[in-house]
Amino acid sequence: MEYNFEFKDGGICAAKGFKAGGTYCGIKKPNPAAGTANAKHKNDICLFASDVECNTAAVYTQNKVKGAPITVTKRNLEKSGNKSIAVIANSKNANTCNADGIEKAEKMCELVAKELGVAKEQVIVASTGVIGQMLPIEPIIKAVPILAQGLGYDKNAEAATAIMTTDTVKKEYAVEFTVSGKKCTIGGMAKGSGMIHPNMATTLNFITTDCAISAPLLQKALSDVVRVTYNCLSIDGDTSTNDMVCVMANGLAGNDEIRQDGESYNVFRAALYQVMANLTRMLAKDGEGATKLVMCRVSGAKDEDTAVECAKSVVRSPLVKTAMFGADANCGRILGAIGYSGADIDPLKIDVSYESAGGVIQVCRAGFVIDFDESAAKEILLDDEITIAVNLNDGEHGITAYGCDLTYDYVKINGDYRT
Amino acid sequence: MEYNFEFKDGGICAAKGFKAGGTYCGIKKPNPAAGTANAKHKNDICLFASDVECNTAAVYTQNKVKGAPITVTKRNLEKSGNKSIAVIANSKNANTCNADGIEKAEKMCELVAKELGVAKEQVIVASTGVIGQMLPIEPIIKAVPILAQGLGYDKNAEAATAIMTTDTVKKEYAVEFTVSGKKCTIGGMAKGSGMIHPNMATTLNFITTDCAISAPLLQKALSDVVRVTYNCLSIDGDTSTNDMVCVMANGLAGNDEIRQDGESYNVFRAALYQVMANLTRMLAKDGEGATKLVMCRVSGAKDEDTAVECAKSVVRSPLVKTAMFGADANCGRILGAIGYSGADIDPLKIDVSYESAGGVIQVCRAGFVIDFDESAAKEILLDDEITIAVNLNDGEHGITAYGCDLTYDYVKINGDYRT
Repeated sequence: MEYNFEFKDGGICAAKGFKAGGTYCGIKKPNPAAGTANAKHKNDICLFASDVECNTAAVYTQNKVKGAPITVTKRNLEKSGNKSIAVIANSKNANTCNADGIEKAEKMCELVAKELGVAKEQVIVASTGVIGQMLPIEPIIKAVPILAQGLGYDKNAEAATAIMTTDTVKKEYAVEFTVSGKKCTIGGMAKGSGMIHPNMATTLNFITTDCAISAPLLQKALSDVVRVTYNCLSIDGDTSTNDMVCVMANGLAGNDEIRQDGESYNVFRAALYQVMANLTRMLAKDGEGATKLVMCRVSGAKDEDTAVECAKSVVRSPLVKTAMFGADANCGRILGAIGYSGADIDPLKIDVSYESAGGVIQVCRAGFVIDFDESAAKEILLDDEITIAVNLNDGEHGITAYGCDLTYDYVKINGDYRT
Repeated sequence: MEYNFEFKDGGICAAKGFKAGGTYCGIKKPNPAAGTANAKHKNDICLFASDVECNTAAVYTQNKVKGAPITVTKRNLEKSGNKSIAVIANSKNANTCNADGIEKAEKMCELVAKELGVAKEQVIVASTGVIGQMLPIEPIIKAVPILAQGLGYDKNAEAATAIMTTDTVKKEYAVEFTVSGKKCTIGGMAKGSGMIHPNMATTLNFITTDCAISAPLLQKALSDVVRVTYNCLSIDGDTSTNDMVCVMANGLAGNDEIRQDGESYNVFRAALYQVMANLTRMLAKDGEGATKLVMCRVSGAKDEDTAVECAKSVVRSPLVKTAMFGADANCGRILGAIGYSGADIDPLKIDVSYESAGGVIQVCRAGFVIDFDESAAKEILLDDEITIAVNLNDGEHGITAYGCDLTYDYVKINGDYRT
């Protein structure tokens, strides 16, 4: 991960040959001004497509209760040999645990296939929102032709806003890199704010690239990077039924196709990591009700799994999360969360510090809480981006997990989400 | 579990030959009236003892970060061959992650041993409260002689209030039963409100009985019952560093000592179950910030482990907990939590209903959310004791897990617990 690429605008449209669009079709409730001349609606459906067929990789939620779109997308990619051209996604309704879910998810693919003149197996479908409410298909039937005709190479924001549910900001990131002398671009968009505790994937994440890379290598890079990005994210410990990350590579950058390990693959993987790590960070910071980004950087682990287990346990702990909300340097809760993580660690080797733009303060040495300046610690914890730095002093491996604080607003948002 | 015994007053003093006491020694902060003639203090230390030596069983937290009192108690019971006479416990300070923790926990045992004229290995020590703050030993040195002199056979409430931290009510329960023609009694007290997600044990639970039972059978009964009571409890998913349940049996009821499986053992086990299940229920209902008790009763599981995994996952889910706070019949979150529980279940067999004193309403059949009367569901969920009834339709096993809702007050209580 020694590469560093520059941020680029454009999200899923940053790479060559990807056009997108989003609109409001009526799945989300209209806002209070609805019906008036100035009525504004939040986008609730989006479509994006590549000019040419894409090698495609995807990872899906490990939740045994799976959304119908997950089942249909998985089946489509199997049938098409991991080739895709377009993605259709809606928000506000997860199309999950409904008796007609599969039928409607397939219908969405058929509508897109017909408009774009492609096979329905080349269409990826995704839905996010409330589970267990029938998805209204009529608005989608009306919206797809309009979306298909309106696709644009600069309409990434229309799409990125259409997948937002309780998200307060859209999440896009892209970078440029070079493979075999050709400039390549990789970009993505993500949604998610609650029900986030990914296992193999998280919420909805769509990545596009013009880099030529074979489907198996693309899958390898995705699976590899997911492990250290989305899978190290926890907003509330709830793993969604509709989590999916997919990467589409259309090869329009003109580089020699990456077909094996080596420098080109490493550059691609690093660029993918940078996009996914930044989207992960954005997801954590926009966690439901969150006032701050809380990261746990574990170092000195004997292996990567140990680091992941400890770091995720800390950012998942409600007691750590509420302490961070209260800017309370309650280090015992961090040690407690490491202790029950299931990781094989030696409690008497653990060091803990708090870090933010405001400074660094050590609070635990070799498993014992030490005397520290409470007011200095409070000052650091009042920042809106905090790192809990844990050194297990037991090896050379490390990882960062991403989370947020637990606040009154999380309770408020989720006390009555459906209405 | 076909037995049913009547509730009896007296908590840990209900059984013959157990005396107790509690006082304020200065570990908790004095209340606002402190220093005045009417100053009242909340008890923060307790002592209880049996007139004769007890066969003793205990289970401890599986957290790798263990409180010093856990280490010392475990060592004492090993040395004494599972014989104990007295318990000393304090609240407000967990004596955990402190460099001098072991030394101070041992000192507490020595102080009690000296006053009662017993071996220090016959003393159980427990602490609960903030992790990582030095335990002040001076107030304890002063308090122990006073406690030892003031022990009474009716002072169970003094002790039960002394172990409270954020608990809003004391938790005691006792029942009477008959073994070999002799009336026996078993009773207990518990504390706990947050940092509760037991793994093999929970928080502090002390059980006393005058029933004669061998130490190995006592341990067997305890381990067995813990699995289906405390280990099915989750307030916030955080497993404490200081969890402990111990049972002391002094044999003063005069029954033939229970030394093997059989009817006597079954009666004892059932009585123990009733005490522990009721204490578990009290712990859940008094969860930090909770406005209601939320139980998940899983039936139709292919084995007990499957039932436990599903039920615990549901009561642990922050999204289920906030929905219960909002009386929102959001069944998708329940299905989601079952799906990610790790249990091997068939999503398309699951039925879900909500139950309370206000009625019963089914919301999911064979994995799909069904049409139901939202206002009737809301009425049921406004009750302060709710059961989420899940039928996996896949076997004959069942279990009930205990939890509570997630509220603004949980965030408030834990945003700055230490001050």
